[in-house]
Amino acid sequence: MTDTIQQIVSDLTTRARAAARTIAAVSDDQKAQALIAAAAALRAASTEILGANAKDMAAGAEHGLSAAMLDRLKLDPARLESIAAAVEQVAHLADPVGQIIDRTERPNGLVMERVRVPVGVLAIIYESRPNVTADAAALGLRAGNAVILRGGSEAVHSNRAIHAAMIKGVVSAGLPADAVQLVPTQDRAAVGALLAAQGQIDMVIPRGGKSLVARVQEEARVPVLAHLDGICHTYVHAKADPAMAEAIVVNAKMRRTGICGSTETLLIDQDYPDPAGLIGALIDAGCEVRADDMLMEIDPRTIAADEEDWGTEYLEPIVSAKMVSGVDDAIDHIAHYGSQHTESIITADDAAAKAFLAGVDSAIVMHNASTQFADGGEFGLGAEIGIATGRLHARGPVALEGLTTYKWLVHGNGQVRP
Amino acid sequence: MTDTIQQIVSDLTTRARAAARTIAAVSDDQKAQALIAAAAALRAASTEILGANAKDMAAGAEHGLSAAMLDRLKLDPARLESIAAAVEQVAHLADPVGQIIDRTERPNGLVMERVRVPVGVLAIIYESRPNVTADAAALGLRAGNAVILRGGSEAVHSNRAIHAAMIKGVVSAGLPADAVQLVPTQDRAAVGALLAAQGQIDMVIPRGGKSLVARVQEEARVPVLAHLDGICHTYVHAKADPAMAEAIVVNAKMRRTGICGSTETLLIDQDYPDPAGLIGALIDAGCEVRADDMLMEIDPRTIAADEEDWGTEYLEPIVSAKMVSGVDDAIDHIAHYGSQHTESIITADDAAAKAFLAGVDSAIVMHNASTQFADGGEFGLGAEIGIATGRLHARGPVALEGLTTYKWLVHGNGQVRP
Repeated sequence: MTDTIQQIVSDLTTRARAAARTIAAVSDDQKAQALIAAAAALRAASTEILGANAKDMAAGAEHGLSAAMLDRLKLDPARLESIAAAVEQVAHLADPVGQIIDRTERPNGLVMERVRVPVGVLAIIYESRPNVTADAAALGLRAGNAVILRGGSEAVHSNRAIHAAMIKGVVSAGLPADAVQLVPTQDRAAVGALLAAQGQIDMVIPRGGKSLVARVQEEARVPVLAHLDGICHTYVHAKADPAMAEAIVVNAKMRRTGICGSTETLLIDQDYPDPAGLIGALIDAGCEVRADDMLMEIDPRTIAADEEDWGTEYLEPIVSAKMVSGVDDAIDHIAHYGSQHTESIITADDAAAKAFLAGVDSAIVMHNASTQFADGGEFGLGAEIGIATGRLHARGPVALEGLTTYKWLVHGNGQVRP
Repeated sequence: MTDTIQQIVSDLTTRARAAARTIAAVSDDQKAQALIAAAAALRAASTEILGANAKDMAAGAEHGLSAAMLDRLKLDPARLESIAAAVEQVAHLADPVGQIIDRTERPNGLVMERVRVPVGVLAIIYESRPNVTADAAALGLRAGNAVILRGGSEAVHSNRAIHAAMIKGVVSAGLPADAVQLVPTQDRAAVGALLAAQGQIDMVIPRGGKSLVARVQEEARVPVLAHLDGICHTYVHAKADPAMAEAIVVNAKMRRTGICGSTETLLIDQDYPDPAGLIGALIDAGCEVRADDMLMEIDPRTIAADEEDWGTEYLEPIVSAKMVSGVDDAIDHIAHYGSQHTESIITADDAAAKAFLAGVDSAIVMHNASTQFADGGEFGLGAEIGIATGRLHARGPVALEGLTTYKWLVHGNGQVRP
């Protein structure tokens, strides 16, 4: 890593820390106004933003980006409007900062309060979607944090234009410009320097594909909020209602196959009455089913699963399917192959549901619902910054509360410790 | 690191994970009974434990351990009884596992609950105090975690005897022996292997001096709950009552100088009416005062502070003292030199107190109270595993709740995502 990159990142984090101290003390209303102004500024800068995006699109086409990547990169008036509207929505979310989590009075008269405060300085590392520039900045700022953004090179012009507009809004509301900073270089060493900035950056949030998340988790000396895989399981129990099971399984796998909450492995209880119906419904919906020996016998259209399939997040219309001997076997399979993201049991048997909900060690465990509900909006949390499968701080869908921490306030009237 | 050490640690973590799955599902009562049985087993094994401790003491004397270290190492019937009693106290604490943090029903009928669950596998790395073997095991287990203990070589016989007794109790209550494991080798490479065990160990808690904590924070690839320094500040505001200020400052510094919550820097407002009284009270109590130029003029018994003093945790009857121009100056000094542990303002002015409580970014911020209250017991949390100055997961005194996380349970009746 060059001294220059080190210096650039050190400068970014120093400014971010100073801005974080300012924003932590800003009122709910002022933060909301800053985001409303940022949304207005995004709309006002549409010509600049769409022009910048056209440059990225042209460069992307020239460099042979795939159609899928170009689609992620592309902005048009409707997409820009939805970015601005999303920023406004975040402005209208309740501010968690200042919330009193609990309060106790001790026998000596000391009053202990736990109060939510911002985490501090967040770094968001993402790929080619320019909307993340606005989304992540809005969520971070709403919870009183300073945000450092590092987007993919493909979107560099779009990100700069979006960032410039947002800053204009933020500053017009009286917040410091350093509240939201964009890393000014696309040198990949800057990512390494951000990940190494222990004590300067409080939390890193990677937004993107598995290789990005894996790199961040591997290199980071700073806490990371992320999920690497979404190998979600749906377990159809012996006592599942077949109509409900079919509807949920097809939805869980096929509604959108590319999201992290889509089911990748179907576990069918050996005593479930209609496995053929389930497998058939998936295949009829256009899903490839990679099955174990027992399930292969049921439908000749299935293909043989191998060991690797049980640990694969397809993100495509493919599902692995296995017969299990009961709840414990399902729980064991999930413990061995799962990614602690989202799992669901379909059953009319409350005892089985209870055992599954207790025994599965995932961020989200569901009963009689589609794993595709694994989303902060669906959980009523407002916009989410992502889904975390780590065990500490925040788990599952992470929204504003996950971007805060707490401190203890102790109110005394002269107490000394005996 | 040798393959053997790697293998030993891998074996420990595999067993711990299996035990963690079992304990996570165990009832509150069964966990409490296991600790009550462990306390009884500690008492029943007093001959073995005191005999083992005598071996450690003899070896320690031979190796020239300091009197202070030998005192930390030493067990006698009274100390062993207090270790057993502490384990019993933990048994009687309320179990956080299973507590519902919040619960919301969505318009589509899905019910989202956040429920406390154990963190999973904890590693405790500590020095020569054998009581930590029992304390840490008890707290970890009470919150449903599997615990891996790695104590200092000086206490190896004591730790083995305490561990053996506790396991006897734990097993008699029907819990797996692997719930509490002691690393079977004193090879220092084992610590490195524990710290690198990403995904196998969920949290590392170092208990000991600064060099231990620094090594753990530097090397760990696993989340660490700790504080490196306790450079605590007491700020005596212009509107402080002098009698209260003197009583609190002397207590905050001198009650026990060796604990992390003792005040290391005194900030005196330039408009505080009686700085000489404060400085004099400290010196009269036997404290060395290292002062800035302004305060040196006030009392000839002070000595000159240098830059290093502002960032030093003395843990001795020494305090650094500085005159500040007001609340903002105090906050700035703390932001620059502090360790985000515990700071206190002494004032009768509510606006000043409010500004200090809001503006100081520490785990604990106090008003009109001694920083020596920075302790889980004083906060009403029961026994603490330690004090954390990191920003994520748990901050300040960490007790049972800090050894848990949560998962989301989603209760449906057939919902699919549109």
